[in-house]
Amino acid sequence: MFDRDSAPKILSEDNLDAIHEHAMQILEEIGMDVIHEPARDLLAKEGQKIDGERVRFDRGWIAERVAQAPSSFTLRARNPERSVVIGGGTPVLTNVGGPPFCSDLDNGRRSGTIEDHVRLVQLTQAAGALTCVQSGAVEPVELPVETRSLDMDYSVLRWTDKPFTGYGTSGAKSVDAIEMARIACGGTDVVGDDPVTMIIINPNSPLIWDTRMADALMRTAAQNQPTVITPFLLAGATSPVSVAGALAIQVAEALSGVAIAQSVRPGAPCLYGSFFTATDMRTGSPAFGTPESVIGILAGAQVARRYGLPFRGGGGLASANSVDGQAAAETQNMLWATMLAGTDFVLHAAGWLEGGLCASYEKLALDLELLSIFAKLREGIGFSEEEFGFDALAEVGPGGLFLGSPHTMKHFKEWLYMSPLFQTPDFATWESMESLTVADRANVAWKQLLEGYEDPGLDPAIDEELREYMDKRKADPPEPED
Amino acid sequence: MFDRDSAPKILSEDNLDAIHEHAMQILEEIGMDVIHEPARDLLAKEGQKIDGERVRFDRGWIAERVAQAPSSFTLRARNPERSVVIGGGTPVLTNVGGPPFCSDLDNGRRSGTIEDHVRLVQLTQAAGALTCVQSGAVEPVELPVETRSLDMDYSVLRWTDKPFTGYGTSGAKSVDAIEMARIACGGTDVVGDDPVTMIIINPNSPLIWDTRMADALMRTAAQNQPTVITPFLLAGATSPVSVAGALAIQVAEALSGVAIAQSVRPGAPCLYGSFFTATDMRTGSPAFGTPESVIGILAGAQVARRYGLPFRGGGGLASANSVDGQAAAETQNMLWATMLAGTDFVLHAAGWLEGGLCASYEKLALDLELLSIFAKLREGIGFSEEEFGFDALAEVGPGGLFLGSPHTMKHFKEWLYMSPLFQTPDFATWESMESLTVADRANVAWKQLLEGYEDPGLDPAIDEELREYMDKRKADPPEPED
Repeated sequence: MFDRDSAPKILSEDNLDAIHEHAMQILEEIGMDVIHEPARDLLAKEGQKIDGERVRFDRGWIAERVAQAPSSFTLRARNPERSVVIGGGTPVLTNVGGPPFCSDLDNGRRSGTIEDHVRLVQLTQAAGALTCVQSGAVEPVELPVETRSLDMDYSVLRWTDKPFTGYGTSGAKSVDAIEMARIACGGTDVVGDDPVTMIIINPNSPLIWDTRMADALMRTAAQNQPTVITPFLLAGATSPVSVAGALAIQVAEALSGVAIAQSVRPGAPCLYGSFFTATDMRTGSPAFGTPESVIGILAGAQVARRYGLPFRGGGGLASANSVDGQAAAETQNMLWATMLAGTDFVLHAAGWLEGGLCASYEKLALDLELLSIFAKLREGIGFSEEEFGFDALAEVGPGGLFLGSPHTMKHFKEWLYMSPLFQTPDFATWESMESLTVADRANVAWKQLLEGYEDPGLDPAIDEELREYMDKRKADPPEPED
Repeated sequence: MFDRDSAPKILSEDNLDAIHEHAMQILEEIGMDVIHEPARDLLAKEGQKIDGERVRFDRGWIAERVAQAPSSFTLRARNPERSVVIGGGTPVLTNVGGPPFCSDLDNGRRSGTIEDHVRLVQLTQAAGALTCVQSGAVEPVELPVETRSLDMDYSVLRWTDKPFTGYGTSGAKSVDAIEMARIACGGTDVVGDDPVTMIIINPNSPLIWDTRMADALMRTAAQNQPTVITPFLLAGATSPVSVAGALAIQVAEALSGVAIAQSVRPGAPCLYGSFFTATDMRTGSPAFGTPESVIGILAGAQVARRYGLPFRGGGGLASANSVDGQAAAETQNMLWATMLAGTDFVLHAAGWLEGGLCASYEKLALDLELLSIFAKLREGIGFSEEEFGFDALAEVGPGGLFLGSPHTMKHFKEWLYMSPLFQTPDFATWESMESLTVADRANVAWKQLLEGYEDPGLDPAIDEELREYMDKRKADPPEPED
């Protein structure tokens, strides 16, 4: 369970063909607006049809270029023992990223600060279930918007030694993330142009490559760093109000991005990303954990595999505004689909609330618990003679009790999963303990996790070099559109 | 997805062989205590080894008898249009059963009453997701324990016309449920000995067939009514503290029950039931939604199929004491496993809280919403040209918005799933609406569902006959052990 081979096949081969055919029709007949001259120049050189900003693509060229992208690659961490393989059969999981707000039960909901960013990054370092750290865990809104990505990226590279997903909302910021990651890994003498960070690339759906993203895509690929090309498709808003219609656009946009990246640098790692769900027509907001989002993840993974690309999708996404039953139910729908799909890279696996507008400390603790259960499920079942326990059964015999038996006492700590968050007191005991909900216990859990955080340390010379890089960039911040 | 063929194969053929081998070793070498003389007499006649109360079974006989049980059958409802096939590829789902307590947000937690039983039964009738009604939705503790099963069974047969799972905690009560179901269906002239109710049979684990359950098993099978033979195995309490050990006992107990039923009446329907989870060693209570319970459901389904028997397992089970994130997370783990396993019959699909000690009205509404999402997922995706929406995309073009487009307006109500329970207001709006949690909204939802309940009516002559049967039995209640 939870690997590619056993992922549910919700699309037939005919469905996959139909999606491909419609995607190619979109690229050939409608095309995309590419609002970035260097990208249009590149595409012209590659023989694509340019008409003003509109570019129409050739399906043969798309196929040829997409075939050049690797199906897996290693993402180096500054601590080489923590490097991960993307597309290697184990999902790589990150913390939430992007919210302007954060919240915890003690201090309520508030704008993010750099202090919160550092804390969320440290929690991610401490959390065994998370194997990659995403910069931008919360926006430090007190810092200048032009340069705060440097502070966020630095806080990941300083306080964690796990692999790093950079804050790459423009070409310049992507390059900063790459440069700083290379410094943290010991410089290009050590890492060459090996992948050291990943940059999320969202086309402006439907069917636009805008300046920032096209620039980020090209500059990241040029450095052989992985791009996570993820159309953001909301059925009924940025795509037709149907799964099929969204999948066709997703393939069109994602493959056009992969083809551009491969034209810049053949062999540069690219992920096929899916971020698709339904629009709640009552509010106009995205609704997570819906049937559409579950299908979107499972279908997206199948499509990615058809093109031989690692798959990014899913995560612990929820629309709920508090850590209640809605939050858990939505998140579980997303995580079950994510795990069943054998997803390779999972952004926002923990801490996401309010449709991504808020990084919740309690939600993070809840999600980590859910991820631990999936990790346990991935381990599977043991079938040793000791586990069958025939002799123990013969000893207790019919009507006997295993509670307190030597076999139980010997093995329960190793074999039984006992959740720190999900508890089972009887109702009277629970009431006498102030009727705590799981959100209350999660409040205790994240504080304990933070207390257990250990600074991985950083070579002072490297730290100095990172700070110098930041200072230099802050003295000469990039243009807003750069 | 969600059918037998695509169910995750978490057990290899070798695993299945090892489980079978250990189960047969248990039946042959340890045996079971059968504390019911008619059952021992039957088993002696069948050539099994009797040593006092201990019976040791022959694996060849077990295999022969188990092969006589059908792999599917129709359970008749008093309204024939609502009859269901058990083992036909669609999960048949019931309300919660068995709790002594019930709760709702208005009146809190309290002992069950017959009024609550009727209300829960009416909610089950009104709930489209539930296709079978379980008697015993809550224990009406104000009624005499000897005869209250009659009142509960009557309330199902009077207020619903869906198929019926009887309250069969003893042989006499099972016969009552069968007799009353036959009356409700129009009598034996109409239904003959077709299945009209199902009786849950729990061996006294480990390895005991006690008087009540052996008697219920034999008398139910004698009438050709389905038995749902379900060992209640808690790792570390009634079974070794391991999945493998529990599965071996589960097979031993379940197959011995099926073999007894087939000896009484070859061809009588039997379900292979799984109710397995871990014991929380901190409290001694069963813990639901754990990795062990997920694996138990998926493995149990595979084992049942190996023996050609319909599978009962899973449900909306949770240990949580309130309708919080724990309740939803645990329930989702159980329901995802239940649906992935292609489970044929799902008891306790909605309303279960506190490890089964409490029937919660709000939990019922939450579970119904989760079940609706699974139903939507079962439907799959459409790939018509209209769904691909190429023309709509060509019309809005790059950067266009589908919100409000003719294609969206035409289709969103049919194609989009919008949950009444899971809402997506922005945080400020949500706060201004009293920061309602999903439990609060579920409180509104179950009341709306109850308001929408329609009495299916019952032929006054049949109603009279049911009441006469009850009165007769109440005047001469069965012995406690009968």
